[in-house]
Amino acid sequence: MALGRRDSLALLTDLYQFTMAYGYWRAGRQREPAEFELFFRRCPFQGGFALSAGLGECLAFLRGFRLREPEIEYLQSVLPSTMEKAFFDYLRTVDASEITVSSAPEGSIVFATVPLLQVKGPLLVVQLLETTLLSLVNYASLVATNAARFRMLAGPDKKLLELGLRRAQGPDGGLSASKYSYIGGFDWTSNVLAGNLYGIPVRGTVAHSYVMSFTSLAEVQPKVRVPAGDEPVDFLPLAETWLRQVCQTLQVPYDRVNHGELAAFISYAIAFPHNFYGLVDTYSIMGSGVPNFCAVALALNQLGYHAVGIRVDSGDLGKQAREIRQVLRTCSANFQVPWFATIPIAVSNDVSERSLEELMQEGNEIDIIGIGTNLVTCPLQPSLGCVYKVTSSLKLTEDEEKMTIPVSKANVCLRFLAGLAFMDLMALEEEPPPRAGQEVAVLLLGRSEVARRVTPTAVEILHRTYFKDGQVCQALPSLLEIKSHAQASLSMLSPAHKRLQDPEPYQVAVTEKLHFLLSDLSRSSQ
Amino acid sequence: MALGRRDSLALLTDLYQFTMAYGYWRAGRQREPAEFELFFRRCPFQGGFALSAGLGECLAFLRGFRLREPEIEYLQSVLPSTMEKAFFDYLRTVDASEITVSSAPEGSIVFATVPLLQVKGPLLVVQLLETTLLSLVNYASLVATNAARFRMLAGPDKKLLELGLRRAQGPDGGLSASKYSYIGGFDWTSNVLAGNLYGIPVRGTVAHSYVMSFTSLAEVQPKVRVPAGDEPVDFLPLAETWLRQVCQTLQVPYDRVNHGELAAFISYAIAFPHNFYGLVDTYSIMGSGVPNFCAVALALNQLGYHAVGIRVDSGDLGKQAREIRQVLRTCSANFQVPWFATIPIAVSNDVSERSLEELMQEGNEIDIIGIGTNLVTCPLQPSLGCVYKVTSSLKLTEDEEKMTIPVSKANVCLRFLAGLAFMDLMALEEEPPPRAGQEVAVLLLGRSEVARRVTPTAVEILHRTYFKDGQVCQALPSLLEIKSHAQASLSMLSPAHKRLQDPEPYQVAVTEKLHFLLSDLSRSSQ
Repeated sequence: MALGRRDSLALLTDLYQFTMAYGYWRAGRQREPAEFELFFRRCPFQGGFALSAGLGECLAFLRGFRLREPEIEYLQSVLPSTMEKAFFDYLRTVDASEITVSSAPEGSIVFATVPLLQVKGPLLVVQLLETTLLSLVNYASLVATNAARFRMLAGPDKKLLELGLRRAQGPDGGLSASKYSYIGGFDWTSNVLAGNLYGIPVRGTVAHSYVMSFTSLAEVQPKVRVPAGDEPVDFLPLAETWLRQVCQTLQVPYDRVNHGELAAFISYAIAFPHNFYGLVDTYSIMGSGVPNFCAVALALNQLGYHAVGIRVDSGDLGKQAREIRQVLRTCSANFQVPWFATIPIAVSNDVSERSLEELMQEGNEIDIIGIGTNLVTCPLQPSLGCVYKVTSSLKLTEDEEKMTIPVSKANVCLRFLAGLAFMDLMALEEEPPPRAGQEVAVLLLGRSEVARRVTPTAVEILHRTYFKDGQVCQALPSLLEIKSHAQASLSMLSPAHKRLQDPEPYQVAVTEKLHFLLSDLSRSSQ
Repeated sequence: MALGRRDSLALLTDLYQFTMAYGYWRAGRQREPAEFELFFRRCPFQGGFALSAGLGECLAFLRGFRLREPEIEYLQSVLPSTMEKAFFDYLRTVDASEITVSSAPEGSIVFATVPLLQVKGPLLVVQLLETTLLSLVNYASLVATNAARFRMLAGPDKKLLELGLRRAQGPDGGLSASKYSYIGGFDWTSNVLAGNLYGIPVRGTVAHSYVMSFTSLAEVQPKVRVPAGDEPVDFLPLAETWLRQVCQTLQVPYDRVNHGELAAFISYAIAFPHNFYGLVDTYSIMGSGVPNFCAVALALNQLGYHAVGIRVDSGDLGKQAREIRQVLRTCSANFQVPWFATIPIAVSNDVSERSLEELMQEGNEIDIIGIGTNLVTCPLQPSLGCVYKVTSSLKLTEDEEKMTIPVSKANVCLRFLAGLAFMDLMALEEEPPPRAGQEVAVLLLGRSEVARRVTPTAVEILHRTYFKDGQVCQALPSLLEIKSHAQASLSMLSPAHKRLQDPEPYQVAVTEKLHFLLSDLSRSSQ
């Protein structure tokens, strides 16, 4: 837990940033103007889009960026002792006051090659920012995109609960997962600290350990009563009476029902009469958990309280939810309790994209889905793989995969719409900006050397300047606003691009002028 | 970046821990003695072992565990308003002063089902600790184990450099990755903050962006001189002279060599004459990068400096390393510079377990391997999936996978050795402890109902008490000591169990007495 000791993230970077900074400084190039772009080369999860996220944290990092004395001393201790002292004096003066950052608003849909961030400023500083910016954007965007995919699969009505804290990369991995899953479309988190820090709605029910900690009805303190109006009622005998009726109705042997489980449910109901939740799969779901739940919920109902949910955490979730719903309907009809039929059913059990897809296809009676491991660890692609590349030059390696699309300095990123978004265009700043209704010649990246003509009905300037002169220069949205923007941004994308498998690739293009510039650069570097 | 604001991790938990805590408190059970065990059900990566890690952070968390006033207020704001105020007063008094934790030393090899941590204390507190302990142990142990697998593949001599910061789950994910990769067997990290906080040796070279930022020799300030003894020397013409000789020797066309790259190398050599490193794959490796590197390194050699390394970051690493080594040997022989043939070659390019295995099989000339994404994201299994289960009771669900091996309170974990470790045994505290050289009857978990007799030549008590009465009660080892212990611990495991694929399962057993107790518990819960 190094966290509390960190006032600054200036050292949260790769060592080579400092050796390279020294190289620039030694060559007198530290203040040379530079521009870097942060982008990914392929959309994650073999999908057709990503959600950009992490901008707010990048801006906070930039605002506080400077090297403090103990950090300088540490650097001196690990860098070659032959380095000139004056370099470290220079590092003492470095901050982000000459840095300019532009970006699409956080939560926007973004595509391969189009920059998520453009960072301009003195070469040495822009270089030093690389790793931290990547660290703040990569996972944030990845998990937000993953969450958006789960949301698309689940449809708009299911409630999605993030519960990945224990499976994330330590405390801060868990916090990032909660924050950016919320942006991507989750409703709630189980992570209390994420709720406290970010205002995300928190939810929680009950775990197997609670149920298992009760072994007999003797552990229910009978003196505890449910306050139902003026007349306190002994709840234990009431629940037992209901259990006999439920068992008869459901044709479940009364003596096979687990009494520790019943004790746990009764205790929880006494503690939370307004918020009773039952976890029904500790022993036998249909032979014990569900009858116990129904008995306690019906006993509470008699006192005027409505149970808020029933939870299953193992097995075939779709099948069990249907069976549970059937039981709830039977009790509802039999005991004439209409609301009973619609008690929310919550499920969790290693839910993945694939298992959620199956659940949704087969029809289900599920209302709330808790997702942990497969949300936060993004097993389909555990890293977004963003890169941070200088744009004033060109890299053409023998490895085609790593060829950078070089973009001249001061480029402009636009989004073309015709009802929906259909193309992102990178242009030079000196070009007259394309306008809505006007035809423009573009070259699709990676598809053709021949220009094609498109006519957008609307043109959106994708990037805004978020950081300038050491200050954040846009009003930053709340997390809820970012979440809303993400859903609005996704709604501008055609279902063909949003398909989780084999999506139609979204078009990313450059203007003819930029294309020729790139070709020139490419030739001159050979 | 919420990190700086966190004085306590007490809220870094799932909300249901607090609802359950209220349930216990409401039933008067908050001070009931409880024991939980933290363990995993299957070894990660389909392997035969794991390294336990995270204990030190768990102990630090426990030492500081208490709920501060703003945290209590937040909890009151999100929990049901019907909860009694007295519960929150009780929470104000809660800390870890009555908690006892025992564990194997951090860095020990551990196996499925055998607890990594045993946590005893008042039921309410032990329950509240669950999620945070899981969060601190799960990823730490996973990535340490992953690092150990890479180390086994690479053999003892290669240097392994962790460079996953930009691909981890945000800042703290990156720090955890660096720390626990080091424990697992890596030599160095690129993460400066990890170096600063944990004392891990940091290493760094140079990136493509540095090379690309130079476009011509004009950018090398000729006034910069290399201090070689008394006589400063203009380095640029010297390097150019060497480049002509190298090109001739290697039969590379002089005019095809990239001048920006040469300028970058010269600048770096001027900055770090004692520590010159070349990244040779920005343009053409054999047609530009390697000749430029050799020229600059030979020029430095003439002034009395030895280059420290050559780096490739793309393509077929094994093949390239062999070709580069051949060139280094050619130059060594041709220019009569013996040390030149053994310049360390460093590689990185999405190195995975599989690609490293291939590299090692085909024989290679690689000295240093940098691993990022596939180390820190653990794509073969991105979560260890540890659980935290009450041991005083029993959970038998319909889902066999989730059946808990219940162990009575106060159990003892032993390791049997016969030269190497061959069995972990769980026993009851009241049983006479098995002794070296004595036969003991055991039942292998998950394999047989029939007892077998084994005679260990040595018996190790696996768990020590690390936390008691609110205090850490063992001298805690340094990170380097934990790393050494991990390697020593691994050396006690047979190669058959260490195989990365299809390992022979290590034996985990219980004593007859414990076996009968479990059988009784199992029957009584049905």
